[in-house]
Amino acid sequence: MPTDAENACFEAGIKFGSLYHQFAGTPVSPDSADSLARAMEESIENQPHCEAVRVTVRREALEAELADSTADYTELTGRFLDVEIDVRYEGTAVRAKMEMEDGYPLMKLVSVDE
Amino acid sequence: MPTDAENACFEAGIKFGSLYHQFAGTPVSPDSADSLARAMEESIENQPHCEAVRVTVRREALEAELADSTADYTELTGRFLDVEIDVRYEGTAVRAKMEMEDGYPLMKLVSVDE
Amino acid sequence: MPTDAENACFEAGIKFGSLYHQFAGTPVSPDSADSLARAMEESIENQPHCEAVRVTVRREALEAELADSTADYTELTGRFLDVEIDVRYEGTAVRAKMEMEDGYPLMKLVSVDE
Amino acid sequence: MPTDAENACFEAGIKFGSLYHQFAGTPVSPDSADSLARAMEESIENQPHCEAVRVTVRREALEAELADSTADYTELTGRFLDVEIDVRYEGTAVRAKMEMEDGYPLMKLVSVDE
Repeated sequence: MPTDAENACFEAGIKFGSLYHQFAGTPVSPDSADSLARAMEESIENQPHCEAVRVTVRREALEAELADSTADYTELTGRFLDVEIDVRYEGTAVRAKMEMEDGYPLMKLVSVDE
Repeated sequence: MPTDAENACFEAGIKFGSLYHQFAGTPVSPDSADSLARAMEESIENQPHCEAVRVTVRREALEAELADSTADYTELTGRFLDVEIDVRYEGTAVRAKMEMEDGYPLMKLVSVDE
Repeated sequence: MPTDAENACFEAGIKFGSLYHQFAGTPVSPDSADSLARAMEESIENQPHCEAVRVTVRREALEAELADSTADYTELTGRFLDVEIDVRYEGTAVRAKMEMEDGYPLMKLVSVDE
Repeated sequence: MPTDAENACFEAGIKFGSLYHQFAGTPVSPDSADSLARAMEESIENQPHCEAVRVTVRREALEAELADSTADYTELTGRFLDVEIDVRYEGTAVRAKMEMEDGYPLMKLVSVDE
């Protein structure tokens, strides 16, 4: 039988995979970044055991990408995002985040508190 | 060579297919419906030739679905949406919408003005 | 510090959330179900720590849905899917699955072997 | 009233937007590219008025991206794809394609035959 902590970590992973693959590819610009971030937070917070989702669009990375481009928008991908998610499963609280590491967005557990 | 009107209709179709398949499946509840609708509008308005996107979540349909359910959210699908999109390509303005017909969401051209 | 087992469960959750929200909403019919199932398996198996993904489209549920419909395809959603995923993180092997429970698709851990 | 040709172009646009935003972001590697291409073709061919979809993953672009990377897969995006779609609406046949132009994937009408 999985422990509460293991179930909590599984649930945290579901939220991250859901958020990323639901919204990756969405057209995004500096002007539309905030409404997209709010929708990502509020939609994933609907999922079971999800206490809070915090999404920040990395505006400087977005503007740097567009400065090199003839377009005024791009597709959402991990290097434009900072995400932190809090999950609670029975007595266990898990925090996980996505951050850039060696140029790749990496999802990782931050803390598991029983 | 396609005409401006034909290109305008092609562009309108791209916006509808994009909006639907980017966001279908997103977790949605009455409380999170507005932020999702705003993100759908603002993200698709980034696309070329797109003048305006208006998204309304059909709240009564959403609440009816949840009344029959043990869950307090569901997945976004066409029967919870009213969408209208305005596209301009060179001199041609196109309006298209998605509406329910025989229980199915149907995307259709409303007007093509050259 | 999260344990290997907790990281393995987090990784299993990421795979499930990714698979579901990447592919939910895809047009699917009995004839196209197999190619979609193969693509779901092979694409998610690319993700780190993912050993195997097994997807079966529940053909009888799909055919029942279409029998009541004027359309010959529908949108992929959880009630048409059986999914099992194997993840290995360092020394820990995790198996997780998605199955119907009370009319809802539920993702759950099956085993965690250290 | 929109003409058959305008409706055909609208339908072709829907298919392109659907294909792109359903599948953008999918994990893809040289080994899994073929199953993903088949699923993209067969799923979109389910849509009304769609006669044929031809998807080729640009393997050389994919391998070039991975050669510069520590990962052995990446996310599907337009620069890895060649797509051609044939639509028929009443008497009108439309062909459209996606191709790279100035480093961007551009969807365009190829022919409209009444």
